[in-house]
Amino acid sequence: MKTIIPSVKGTRDFYPEDMAVRTWLYQILRKVSESFGYQEYEGPVLETLDLYAAKSSEELVREQSFSFTDRGGDWITLRPELTPTLARMIAQRQQQLTYPLRWWSFGPFWRYEKPQKGRLREFFQWNIDLIGVDTPEADAELIAIIAALFREVGLTPNEAVILVNDRRLVNGQLERLGIPSEQRQNALSWIDRRDKMRPEVWDANGLEMGLTAEQLAGTKAFLENTDLWRESEGLARVFAALEAMGARDYVRYDSGIIRGLPYYTGIVFEAFDVSGSLRRAILGGGRYNNLMAAVGGDPLPAVGFAMGDVVISLILKELGRLPAGRDASPARVLVTVFDAERLPVSLALASELRRAGLKAACYPEPAKLPRQLKYADRMGMHVAVVIGPDEAANGQVTIKDLQAGKQQTIERENAAAAIGAVLERE
Amino acid sequence: MKTIIPSVKGTRDFYPEDMAVRTWLYQILRKVSESFGYQEYEGPVLETLDLYAAKSSEELVREQSFSFTDRGGDWITLRPELTPTLARMIAQRQQQLTYPLRWWSFGPFWRYEKPQKGRLREFFQWNIDLIGVDTPEADAELIAIIAALFREVGLTPNEAVILVNDRRLVNGQLERLGIPSEQRQNALSWIDRRDKMRPEVWDANGLEMGLTAEQLAGTKAFLENTDLWRESEGLARVFAALEAMGARDYVRYDSGIIRGLPYYTGIVFEAFDVSGSLRRAILGGGRYNNLMAAVGGDPLPAVGFAMGDVVISLILKELGRLPAGRDASPARVLVTVFDAERLPVSLALASELRRAGLKAACYPEPAKLPRQLKYADRMGMHVAVVIGPDEAANGQVTIKDLQAGKQQTIERENAAAAIGAVLERE
Repeated sequence: MKTIIPSVKGTRDFYPEDMAVRTWLYQILRKVSESFGYQEYEGPVLETLDLYAAKSSEELVREQSFSFTDRGGDWITLRPELTPTLARMIAQRQQQLTYPLRWWSFGPFWRYEKPQKGRLREFFQWNIDLIGVDTPEADAELIAIIAALFREVGLTPNEAVILVNDRRLVNGQLERLGIPSEQRQNALSWIDRRDKMRPEVWDANGLEMGLTAEQLAGTKAFLENTDLWRESEGLARVFAALEAMGARDYVRYDSGIIRGLPYYTGIVFEAFDVSGSLRRAILGGGRYNNLMAAVGGDPLPAVGFAMGDVVISLILKELGRLPAGRDASPARVLVTVFDAERLPVSLALASELRRAGLKAACYPEPAKLPRQLKYADRMGMHVAVVIGPDEAANGQVTIKDLQAGKQQTIERENAAAAIGAVLERE
Repeated sequence: MKTIIPSVKGTRDFYPEDMAVRTWLYQILRKVSESFGYQEYEGPVLETLDLYAAKSSEELVREQSFSFTDRGGDWITLRPELTPTLARMIAQRQQQLTYPLRWWSFGPFWRYEKPQKGRLREFFQWNIDLIGVDTPEADAELIAIIAALFREVGLTPNEAVILVNDRRLVNGQLERLGIPSEQRQNALSWIDRRDKMRPEVWDANGLEMGLTAEQLAGTKAFLENTDLWRESEGLARVFAALEAMGARDYVRYDSGIIRGLPYYTGIVFEAFDVSGSLRRAILGGGRYNNLMAAVGGDPLPAVGFAMGDVVISLILKELGRLPAGRDASPARVLVTVFDAERLPVSLALASELRRAGLKAACYPEPAKLPRQLKYADRMGMHVAVVIGPDEAANGQVTIKDLQAGKQQTIERENAAAAIGAVLERE
């Protein structure tokens, strides 16, 4: 056996049945995004390394990005995330755009990570952001969009949860404990890692970082205080707004949510499936009020999130709620070919049916009729049209309803209408 | 003024008004592809350099590809074209797929070329292929699809032309002139360059290549013979099939069409705008019966073409047939906010409208009503909803029809129905 040239590790081939599922997800994301008034946009796939250098997570850029010098010697990156591109695009037209800006996007991204369940090197991401307004109600809108997505795909509050925190609340607590501001970014990363480490190792890391035993105990105390959010006016208003929007039942305060990206300045949130085996974040986001200025624009507040296509698809698949992608023709009609001589007659009829608005394939060569009908059946078509010598002589066509197993011979000029009538009963 | 980090040369930002045009084109391509029964698929963006090495044009791979080694040391290429990926995907499932296979795709591609009018480094391409059948009628189907696209976007046969040739016909002529087979690939490239060179230089190149004066004269003679296609049974059947399909008026035989990619084995074609200033190919394609075997599969005949998004868009724009992309909200309704106290009431109403199937944005903070109405107007919304203290006290809402300049105050529970009625008159 010959060897087929392999595809690149961590990438996917979208055969028609896979593409149908991707298109289904894209349409759901479009429906949810547009129902809240968000406009679709898209950035380039290639960006300069500079765009990410100062703003993105260091791990993302230094260890996980696909970066290279192009033939002109410029450093190019395959985008690992969209937010820096969004910030660049807004900064470029900051004075012309109409605020509040509501934008969404669905496109490909790359990260050089070890491929595993729920994680690929080439994946798709839904990005959605509300820009130009800095209120807890704006934060709540993004969370309500997540809830609307979960409702749309059939995930109940028993199956998916949105965990919310606020970096200002955490920073306030660290300040109260006397942890100096220059130590706080490290402290945030340390808190972020807590659920991935054994408690005694995490404690030891805290002390190594320079915390006193009292500061360590104080940190653990505020992390375990499930009512701490009540001290944050912002979070209290977020929860009240979510209550008003009917989305509160998906949302919980969680002191451990920090998010890896350093550009977050306020609310941060992640969504997880509750019951599933995957235990990976479905999505994550938060408020980033300094990013527009970091890429060269004027300061502009913003909040948003990103969701990869891989984890949500796996969860929906496990729950049996991902549609079965079908390897089916979009054409509902096959015009069969009686013999080589009558091939042009079939080609002409198929064209006529298309001009009448039907999706129609013509068998592209003479073949035995059973073979052509088997093809129509395999491709999920509903109607086959036959023009044999008798039909051709009489200006007629035979229409076979493959699902009902019936057929009728009619005048050729009525073919489109008759086929349309059969398809309407689908 | 601060400097905004620049984007990468030859890439595009798709602001909402640009994205609307791209989505319009994608939908047209979907409509045309599906009307002929083609299924949508997609490959990865990253492929190994090996996939292109032996099959693609040397210029494309060695000089124009974005290639690099990844962090694991593998040679990776940003796909410059889709056909090798298509061949790989089919070879992988060659026994399971149902033939004839009709597949189409629309996605991003990269070529490191000098950006200029009609040419970018990052662009989109429509690919469409019919696989598993080797008949002139299959060739004709692809050409009829081009004609259907032209009709769909309003390009008449006076504005766009599809030029057709057959490599077997050219090779037969070269053979007849005694040009040996090992010289024929070079001869094809030389013929391909004819319209880009001064005649005397082209003649000189032919002689340098080793042609005799007689062979040079013979080549020129067959290239100038506009009836030569009649000697090709294949082309004669292609034209007859196009006549049957009502697509003949777009198509012309042109002896100079060769196509750069070496994998073509039969018919080759390119489409051009006739009247425009651009003078660049809109699309190109042909039959490639050896590619599946070249990537490791069994031999399988195939025909297809690819069209970039840049040239067709420029032509349609010049002709005034590209839709004006609008920077408009998909939401038709803005729920305004009276004051901070009543913000939750507005949030709740917007959610109710969405659950009733309307696309509705809520202003995300208290602001003066004229400012909110100006926002609705700028974003092209049709209806604004006001819930002031009076309305709230009486369980009512005021609905402003921004286009008709009318308003009505109604019971809150009737809001969705009343707004729906206003929008239906759009």
